[in-house]
Amino acid sequence: MNELISQLRGAVGAAHVLTEGDLSAWETDWRKRSRGKALAVVRPGSTAEVAAVVRACAAAGTPVVPQGGNTGLVVGGVPDASGREVVLSLTRLNRVRAIDGDNLTMTVDAGCVLQNLQQAADDAGLLFPLSLAAEGSCTIGGNLATNAGGTQVVRYGNTRELCLGLEVVTAQGEVWDGLTGLRKDNTGYDLRDLFIGSEGTLGVITGATMKLYPRPAATLTAWAAVPSMEAAVKLLGLAHRHLGAGLTGFEVMGQFALSLVARHYPQLRVPLYQSVPYCVLLENADQESEEHARTLFERLLEVALEDGCVADAVVAENLTQAHQLWHIREAIPLAQAEEGLNIKHDISIPVSRIPAFCADTDALLQREIAGVRLVNFGHLGDGNLHYNVQAPEGGDMKAFLEGNEERVNTLVYDQVKRFDGSISAEHGIGMLKAGKLPEYKSPVALGMMQALKRALDPKNLLNPGRVVSL
Amino acid sequence: MNELISQLRGAVGAAHVLTEGDLSAWETDWRKRSRGKALAVVRPGSTAEVAAVVRACAAAGTPVVPQGGNTGLVVGGVPDASGREVVLSLTRLNRVRAIDGDNLTMTVDAGCVLQNLQQAADDAGLLFPLSLAAEGSCTIGGNLATNAGGTQVVRYGNTRELCLGLEVVTAQGEVWDGLTGLRKDNTGYDLRDLFIGSEGTLGVITGATMKLYPRPAATLTAWAAVPSMEAAVKLLGLAHRHLGAGLTGFEVMGQFALSLVARHYPQLRVPLYQSVPYCVLLENADQESEEHARTLFERLLEVALEDGCVADAVVAENLTQAHQLWHIREAIPLAQAEEGLNIKHDISIPVSRIPAFCADTDALLQREIAGVRLVNFGHLGDGNLHYNVQAPEGGDMKAFLEGNEERVNTLVYDQVKRFDGSISAEHGIGMLKAGKLPEYKSPVALGMMQALKRALDPKNLLNPGRVVSL
Repeated sequence: MNELISQLRGAVGAAHVLTEGDLSAWETDWRKRSRGKALAVVRPGSTAEVAAVVRACAAAGTPVVPQGGNTGLVVGGVPDASGREVVLSLTRLNRVRAIDGDNLTMTVDAGCVLQNLQQAADDAGLLFPLSLAAEGSCTIGGNLATNAGGTQVVRYGNTRELCLGLEVVTAQGEVWDGLTGLRKDNTGYDLRDLFIGSEGTLGVITGATMKLYPRPAATLTAWAAVPSMEAAVKLLGLAHRHLGAGLTGFEVMGQFALSLVARHYPQLRVPLYQSVPYCVLLENADQESEEHARTLFERLLEVALEDGCVADAVVAENLTQAHQLWHIREAIPLAQAEEGLNIKHDISIPVSRIPAFCADTDALLQREIAGVRLVNFGHLGDGNLHYNVQAPEGGDMKAFLEGNEERVNTLVYDQVKRFDGSISAEHGIGMLKAGKLPEYKSPVALGMMQALKRALDPKNLLNPGRVVSL
Repeated sequence: MNELISQLRGAVGAAHVLTEGDLSAWETDWRKRSRGKALAVVRPGSTAEVAAVVRACAAAGTPVVPQGGNTGLVVGGVPDASGREVVLSLTRLNRVRAIDGDNLTMTVDAGCVLQNLQQAADDAGLLFPLSLAAEGSCTIGGNLATNAGGTQVVRYGNTRELCLGLEVVTAQGEVWDGLTGLRKDNTGYDLRDLFIGSEGTLGVITGATMKLYPRPAATLTAWAAVPSMEAAVKLLGLAHRHLGAGLTGFEVMGQFALSLVARHYPQLRVPLYQSVPYCVLLENADQESEEHARTLFERLLEVALEDGCVADAVVAENLTQAHQLWHIREAIPLAQAEEGLNIKHDISIPVSRIPAFCADTDALLQREIAGVRLVNFGHLGDGNLHYNVQAPEGGDMKAFLEGNEERVNTLVYDQVKRFDGSISAEHGIGMLKAGKLPEYKSPVALGMMQALKRALDPKNLLNPGRVVSL
């Protein structure tokens, strides 16, 4: 094994092969659900060095765990406890290689931090719309490897839809230069989309060409109290019709979720939630002007109020107010943590079936698990709910979780399956959910996934055991 | 072989297994570049029957050529001359299975004709935006298998971007039910996008769930004369900024292309083309009103005229005028055919590099091939040009083509490669370009494509030799 370490040192420089000291920043996942042990943490500084690392590990039969900002939520980017896996950290690959304004693209290293890319686009007078809670530390390579979602998917799609080309180091340590900035290219199989969302199990993403957009002239935010989930879905339809592609955000938040924010962050002053089961946060980005955006928003809300699918609503008067409204939405996970332990889900359901899913599943859980409290919120525009389960008030939360987590997961996921949904909408599979896939994915799909894994990584050395088991 | 035929008859009914008479409708490709000979044409009526056909052929070691509306342009959906291949025609699978207005999706059989799907969406008060010349006879399964483009890609993307889920019969004759209507689903590898664009070589698409959109309140069309290709690119940037997602079409047409329309279809009255090298057709779809669309268009054109990137422009006053302008654009290939034989290309280049590509390649061809006439037009918004080469005026066109086609292709494709473009933007590879791929695609990419083909179709029986050669 010393031979591999010295090869890795030769490939990337001794300073960038870490084997001693506190490596917990690379070995522990974001939510601290897993503490692994790495054989080494290797930090290459170029695509060629990544390729050399993969080749050396392949020759030694050593598994490689690619890692970006290590903000993943499904234990997909940290080593297991064996001490046999090499962590391949991409964060030193952090250059913006090119911005092409006329082509509306940006070509970047995989290790670039998402927020820095938003900024680079903004500096060029353009918009890179991917936006999510971890944007200050997650990397675009990780976003691509997990096909990250976030808050603007209803307009711009997931990370997948924002990517035109990739540079990938294969399991054999070859470099595939697929860094195209083309909107149309039908010359063979879609390798790009196969790597996107494969969580480092088929290849190591080292660079990407991403789409850029013109910056909107104005962005407005509104907050609406709705009398039911059915009403929220109806409001979504109205918003699509009235705002078209201007609709950049549509978040739903359940009353209990908002009451936790009100309890733990009273200074945030949650509006309009006390007499309705759900509130909705809407965002409207306008190419024309703030005045135009406001007119469209007011027209939409007028129709919605008349129709009865909105009980009351406010439109933010300025950016500060808009940020305050978004802050409430973003504070829900924090308020949940303040309240105590909880069981998280990241599910999606066809939008049309979400009202029935929620009614049915709420009732099921309340029947099956005494005192259960449901923290339901998420990106309704994409059919994506963070349907979380908080331990009952008071009592021993740890004991509750230990006794109920598996059961709650099974109840929720079985319901998701009944309603033609997905047990992982935007977070991925990783190690956390790899064991669940066989229950919730068709054998035909799983068989194809295994065949693809064997085809591209026949030695099973890239992030083995994550996503798909051979 | 009689045994296979009788199995096929058992699977789909004798009336739907054609072995005699004139089968040229299935054996000859759209552009009549290839006349093959099928062992049989089989027309299953359900997904289960498709699976039975594939299983029977697999057991017999007989290749299967899936076929939709047979309007493909790269000889990808017709049998070769061997008489050994079974044509699997999907056109009897033609039901709209479901339209879900709240979820903005429609689930359909692969054999549905595109125009019927546009109509079905319209009947439900919604928009299915895929639109291309062959829409009256092409099928959605063929659109998916070739990842068809068309005229609204600048706003809505290619067929790939419009698809959420697939039903596929695998090479083993199993049915993968991936008919999800989810906008977010990160549970493993992206099988959907692997099948999309694989031209029937990895599986047979039998159904799909497609995205729908709210219908725009108004759609306006403008025609602009531009002083150069640089100016056209600049106008595109202005259009993105002023119209945002309202920009649904941006077509460029060279002066010579328009002069052919004027010569062969004088009744179409081509506007504004005589004193400029290019004209641009713009389409603006507005969620609000025709008045609003007109205001935005006029503001855009005012800025563009001031800036000098537009020399003159007209906005269609009504739908009839708009159709007339589109008719001119669509008449270019017809006018080319009237003019005589020509060599067609379907290329894409990063938008920012198109002016240099055209200047460079125009000069190169004029230098290398005496009397060559360039018919350049296409979807500039997507960087997609139909950069066609018309034989010199007068003289023996057939001899010209026979003597120059290969050379012209090589000159153009080598230029495409130099400018980081694609030799097939929206038509695919089929048999026509399969031999070209090794010259224009990286060995790493080709190696992965072959590995994927072997993984999913190890017996090489699905559309063998098309796209990728083993």
